[in-house]
Amino acid sequence: MILDKAALDARDAADPLAFARARFRLPEGVIYLDGNSLGALPKATPARMAEAVEGEWGGDLITSWNKAGWMELPHRIGAQIAALIGASPEEVVAGDSTSVALFKLAAAAVRLRPRRSVILSERGNFPTDLYVLEGVADITGRRLQTVDADAIETALNDDVALLVLTHVDYRTGRILDMKRLTDRAHAAGALVLWDLSHSAGALELDLSAAGADFAVGCGYKYFNGGPGAPGYMMAARRHQEQIRQPVTGWIGHAAPFAFEDRYAPASGMGRFLTGTPAVLGLVALEAGLRTFDGVDMAMVRQKSKALGQLFIDLVEARLPEAFTLASPRDAAARGSQVSLRHPDAYAIVQALIEAGVVGDFRAPDIARFGLTPLYLGFADIGQAVDRLVRIMESGIWREARFAVRQAVT
Amino acid sequence: MILDKAALDARDAADPLAFARARFRLPEGVIYLDGNSLGALPKATPARMAEAVEGEWGGDLITSWNKAGWMELPHRIGAQIAALIGASPEEVVAGDSTSVALFKLAAAAVRLRPRRSVILSERGNFPTDLYVLEGVADITGRRLQTVDADAIETALNDDVALLVLTHVDYRTGRILDMKRLTDRAHAAGALVLWDLSHSAGALELDLSAAGADFAVGCGYKYFNGGPGAPGYMMAARRHQEQIRQPVTGWIGHAAPFAFEDRYAPASGMGRFLTGTPAVLGLVALEAGLRTFDGVDMAMVRQKSKALGQLFIDLVEARLPEAFTLASPRDAAARGSQVSLRHPDAYAIVQALIEAGVVGDFRAPDIARFGLTPLYLGFADIGQAVDRLVRIMESGIWREARFAVRQAVT
Repeated sequence: MILDKAALDARDAADPLAFARARFRLPEGVIYLDGNSLGALPKATPARMAEAVEGEWGGDLITSWNKAGWMELPHRIGAQIAALIGASPEEVVAGDSTSVALFKLAAAAVRLRPRRSVILSERGNFPTDLYVLEGVADITGRRLQTVDADAIETALNDDVALLVLTHVDYRTGRILDMKRLTDRAHAAGALVLWDLSHSAGALELDLSAAGADFAVGCGYKYFNGGPGAPGYMMAARRHQEQIRQPVTGWIGHAAPFAFEDRYAPASGMGRFLTGTPAVLGLVALEAGLRTFDGVDMAMVRQKSKALGQLFIDLVEARLPEAFTLASPRDAAARGSQVSLRHPDAYAIVQALIEAGVVGDFRAPDIARFGLTPLYLGFADIGQAVDRLVRIMESGIWREARFAVRQAVT
Repeated sequence: MILDKAALDARDAADPLAFARARFRLPEGVIYLDGNSLGALPKATPARMAEAVEGEWGGDLITSWNKAGWMELPHRIGAQIAALIGASPEEVVAGDSTSVALFKLAAAAVRLRPRRSVILSERGNFPTDLYVLEGVADITGRRLQTVDADAIETALNDDVALLVLTHVDYRTGRILDMKRLTDRAHAAGALVLWDLSHSAGALELDLSAAGADFAVGCGYKYFNGGPGAPGYMMAARRHQEQIRQPVTGWIGHAAPFAFEDRYAPASGMGRFLTGTPAVLGLVALEAGLRTFDGVDMAMVRQKSKALGQLFIDLVEARLPEAFTLASPRDAAARGSQVSLRHPDAYAIVQALIEAGVVGDFRAPDIARFGLTPLYLGFADIGQAVDRLVRIMESGIWREARFAVRQAVT
């Protein structure tokens, strides 16, 4: 089912989410298929940042902690995120990097299962998740066990304190069944922590319905919060009052400005906060989340599936046998990305970037294309595949300069 | 020794640091004596932020991790800070909140003394330090002991793993003797971690000469990095290769983009990094540090002492017995602030803010005035005291509206 340009334009014209594209500033001529790594710049963000920097900081200085509501940013943003992940407003706070957020939540969670010794995760999970869990296991005297996805359920025994899974795999986009795995973990007496970095803002999520205990996620991917934006933490209300996280700083204190010598945790999610809120990052994240105003996540998901299907169909029709599909073929099992395997994926991605199609490479052999329904259209996908075809057919990607490796995130 | 306006203007005219004031944008009519809580906005910061947001993020998107050097920000800023605190460039990295940074360093440090059970600190230390140490002690199976400043040396016995002190007391501005206390701790076999939040950028520091093992500090006070700016971590080179900090994220990995399942610490300070660098906060911090370009810290210290002396002299001459001096009278023992005790300090500070003199209140009874030599002059101090005199003599601070407490940082 290959569509010509007119047909793709027609699909864009009929797209109920087309209005959202005007909320972003995208560089001329670039097709940006990397919003799952760094979301694009919302048009409203520069003015909002300038207001925060020049007006709130420069003009009102220290008084902005109250006057501009800086102190409330972690909770205010948390409530906005909660609406996008199916949690209650008082179950989410924003702050710290996603990795630090995961450390705090995971270390707190295992303490709720003091007699169990295992933290269970998936082999090949996003590396920072595994590294952080290694650190948590080490400092809390537990053991990190990793298994392949299909072995998770059988590994859930009565020694597992905490199961930590990334909902959408960063390499392939494969979705894990949140409800089912949460249920199985609970049946085994374990708690579950979901990393939503590659799902939130692209998929319909309902953490409450899934019975999730905890979640973390990333502010700079689908949430468009800017490079290195703060992450967020979710803890189900039923756990909040008995949980203690280890990085106990003043902003997580019950009375931060009483300047008492002894720590006493704030009620609710406040206790997951640690240091002074990172205002500039939080302001940008809040502006990023505004791109979801009035957006129906069911429509986002529907469009994401359709964009992925189109991408796969076009690549397979026009470049048969050039790539192996690394993502699930079934749209229902696939997040908002399409990943293609090729032994020279690195060079191909570099050549594509030069041609104005920005995707990314994930070791060892994956070319990864993120599909962000808020600012990508069907004609964009058509053009991206046109350029991919041109690169593959010309062989330009074999030029030596495309093989020079640089660190990328 | 009370100077009239002309004499103060003459001192400003002769001030070799007067050039630095032009590097800041200060609101008209405001005398800002709170740079020790939130540094003022550098004039260059808005344009630099706009460039990072619109050009680097909006224009170059993901490629800015390499092209704009985002990945290097923690190290680049670390090297700039190192020059201001007397450390080697490769001994400092920037990132995370100061509280999270302290957690990482302190938890790592105690592991270098596995057979000692005590973390020692000062009673009345800045609360987040004590709260973080409580968390570190708890999760590492140690005990936090706090003593008054004059009892620190006698408390240093062979069970102390780590001594954590804030160099300049946040309430009174009293300076601890870094070299002496570090030597005593080392003689007792303990390690020492200094919190430089209230000293760096205002005092001459030489961590290397003092033999300090570790240090943390704050980016948003004298460094002018913006609200909630990232903190920084310093570890002496001799400790770097054997130390393991517990919050092991991907950016602290030896090969972050190899996407390996097992954690392996980066060499040097890189291992203290955790999550994706918070670019927007780091960019603002880097711009803030630029206000120290070509600035001699000996001159900063000299001016800071003189500003403090003038403030104390003027207050004591014009408002005898209105306040008790909470700061050391001896300039050599006093950081870059003057703190005055008064039972109604809260209301007085509020009335002063309304009159355009921004200081802050610290529980229970301290009015705190930060002196930032880069953007404050002698005439400013004269004016600030003029307004304080007017408030005290008029009794306006007794009006009920000034007693309404708000959270402030």
